[in-house]
Amino acid sequence: MAEEPTKTKTLQPVIILSQPQMGENIGATARVMRNFGLLELRIISPRDGWPNAKSTAMAAGAFNLMKPVRVFEDTATAIADLQQVFAVTARLRDMEKPVLSPDTAMEKIHAASNFGARSGLLFGPEASGLSNAEVTACDGILTYPVASDFASLNLAQAVGVAAFAWRNSTDIPGLYVDQNRAADNPLATKQELAAMLEHLEEELLQAKFFHPPEKALVMMQNLQNLFARAEPTAQEIRTLRGVIKALSHGRGKNK
Amino acid sequence: MAEEPTKTKTLQPVIILSQPQMGENIGATARVMRNFGLLELRIISPRDGWPNAKSTAMAAGAFNLMKPVRVFEDTATAIADLQQVFAVTARLRDMEKPVLSPDTAMEKIHAASNFGARSGLLFGPEASGLSNAEVTACDGILTYPVASDFASLNLAQAVGVAAFAWRNSTDIPGLYVDQNRAADNPLATKQELAAMLEHLEEELLQAKFFHPPEKALVMMQNLQNLFARAEPTAQEIRTLRGVIKALSHGRGKNK
Repeated sequence: MAEEPTKTKTLQPVIILSQPQMGENIGATARVMRNFGLLELRIISPRDGWPNAKSTAMAAGAFNLMKPVRVFEDTATAIADLQQVFAVTARLRDMEKPVLSPDTAMEKIHAASNFGARSGLLFGPEASGLSNAEVTACDGILTYPVASDFASLNLAQAVGVAAFAWRNSTDIPGLYVDQNRAADNPLATKQELAAMLEHLEEELLQAKFFHPPEKALVMMQNLQNLFARAEPTAQEIRTLRGVIKALSHGRGKNK
Repeated sequence: MAEEPTKTKTLQPVIILSQPQMGENIGATARVMRNFGLLELRIISPRDGWPNAKSTAMAAGAFNLMKPVRVFEDTATAIADLQQVFAVTARLRDMEKPVLSPDTAMEKIHAASNFGARSGLLFGPEASGLSNAEVTACDGILTYPVASDFASLNLAQAVGVAAFAWRNSTDIPGLYVDQNRAADNPLATKQELAAMLEHLEEELLQAKFFHPPEKALVMMQNLQNLFARAEPTAQEIRTLRGVIKALSHGRGKNK
């Protein structure tokens, strides 16, 4: 049998901002990139120069936890070393260029990465967006499923969606495996659940809760379904038994 | 045969901001909600009052294209009419509460909507996040695959990710069906592609491009693969034939 190929470490996409205007947006971009684990930001001719105090304030410390930002004079130089670049834009050009969803774009970035190729995502300036020449230099248009009558995202929001889509497309083992269910607080066994339900049924019988009595079976099934759905822990079952005991304690005496 | 059940119109999740501090974030929230087609925003006790000029400035007109924002005094009132609410937070509490990915949360919102139930997504204040009491009042925790060492998103970015995940989970017919390939600019037929390749091969033969001549077959296969991969339109094929003609025109004469 052939050996499994070694899984190459996935290469992140580089985020490239073409001629960003507001320093705040560059800082907010860095923050959300770092939130989703992206480390490499490039800037082409930022309007207000670089570094930028407003950018630093909005980044909430992200720049210190990323690769140093690189500033370029033009788009060609900024993307020169990359093998695959997608233009992120809501404005679909009259251009023969594939239009990709975030999911598809991320698949293509992973696929390229498997062959050691690096990808970039190119975002245009706030007011005007990417030029047609910049879009032409890219391999495809990445567009989001925006409302057609209100399609223009804030620049950092646009980067945020891409950064999320990237991270969401990578395997992060165990993230959603109910971390809150710690090993020291295990789910109840079926026996513990059944014993609690027996206890409950016994007290309900004594309280003459079931009338007519033949309703008991269906009623207890309903209660069992309810409690099973809650997926209780062993500790919660103990709490419920305490509740049943407390509620029924001394009940007969006041009659 | 039973009739297909009528597909209920999908009910959008309501976005609920608990005690937001900065008006800018409320405005940026509205903008990105509207970008992804979400129309209902509720605010619980905004710190700087409501309405708020900074909020309006950041919204880029979104408020005019949404339902009127409703302001509530407390969380219980703000979520009272909803059947399913998820707390959006990066801070996983020591609490028996399911932890959901964006994809799973959106599935649950669609599933509830199929039975006419409305859902909400609850976001906490910028500095402190949701209280444990607020998380407890929810049906689950929605968390994003953030970097564990830099997990705190800007509030409007957090809403933006949810709004994108929502829109991305709904069917938007034809969005990624290569809109740029308009009906008046159809893909080339296989015959047009083949004729162009024959034209090219003929000119290359005359130019003695293939040596040794037995390489012609493989070389032409490679060129066919290259041009097929480009998925050319009929117009592009005409352009290519013009290019071949122009390049080969008069070639022999200068020899």
